[in-house]
Amino acid sequence: MDDVAGMGFALAEAQASYDAGGVPVGAALVGHDGSVVGVGHNRRVQDANPLSHGETQCMMNVGRRASYADLVMYTTLAPCMMCAGTIVQFGIPRVVVGEAANFPGELDFLRARGVNVVVLDHKPCIELMAKFIAEKPELWNEDIGVAPDA
Amino acid sequence: MDDVAGMGFALAEAQASYDAGGVPVGAALVGHDGSVVGVGHNRRVQDANPLSHGETQCMMNVGRRASYADLVMYTTLAPCMMCAGTIVQFGIPRVVVGEAANFPGELDFLRARGVNVVVLDHKPCIELMAKFIAEKPELWNEDIGVAPDA
Repeated sequence: MDDVAGMGFALAEAQASYDAGGVPVGAALVGHDGSVVGVGHNRRVQDANPLSHGETQCMMNVGRRASYADLVMYTTLAPCMMCAGTIVQFGIPRVVVGEAANFPGELDFLRARGVNVVVLDHKPCIELMAKFIAEKPELWNEDIGVAPDA
Repeated sequence: MDDVAGMGFALAEAQASYDAGGVPVGAALVGHDGSVVGVGHNRRVQDANPLSHGETQCMMNVGRRASYADLVMYTTLAPCMMCAGTIVQFGIPRVVVGEAANFPGELDFLRARGVNVVVLDHKPCIELMAKFIAEKPELWNEDIGVAPDA
């Protein structure tokens, strides 16, 4: 699948979360044949689950598999340390990132652990996240693990 | 709280998972005043959720907090990369590990990120995990991200 087309599935998830009042980060796991194996979006607000980021929710929706080595992760935003650790733990070999402008994420860590990382610098991803951060900075800080007094 | 006493809560969770046919890893998050803020155990088998390790399930059970910097994580087994990333992401400053004999985990990563890590080498934790690995190697391999043909 073309990377911009793959990112479309992740971005649609991010938009769905934004429309529901949640954090607009979305992800999709896509197989080598272009099939979308699963999608997900951040549900911290919707489910009151701090571990529900776009990437982890997508993994939970895909569920148990003997291996994840045949999948590509598309995510609208650079993965945080939890999500980067999850990607490495489950052996996902390639991650396509919509943008790292609003949040740098752990791209160096992923690369150091052998993950093939591509950053699209995708304008629709940047704009949606920037709009959310400006509108709800307290939710955003909670999501990236920044305490209110930090 | 004394570290061996704190580990007792995590070990009770691990035993509960073993008794239910699941992976026997348990965790507890304890405050500075000794109060147990939350507990959890691996529910990969019980919930078919690959991201439900002892540490992550404990975090999910604790839920949203402005900060996790006042908590100590007790876990029966050395954290995998997903769980270590989660600990760093949420700023948990201290992790007490029951054992790293059956699985080395990512203790060096945690320490490099400034987490205070203590390994108890706790015999009941070692024995419960060793019994499970001998009984159900296929579940164990899935849990640590080892593919069947690896």
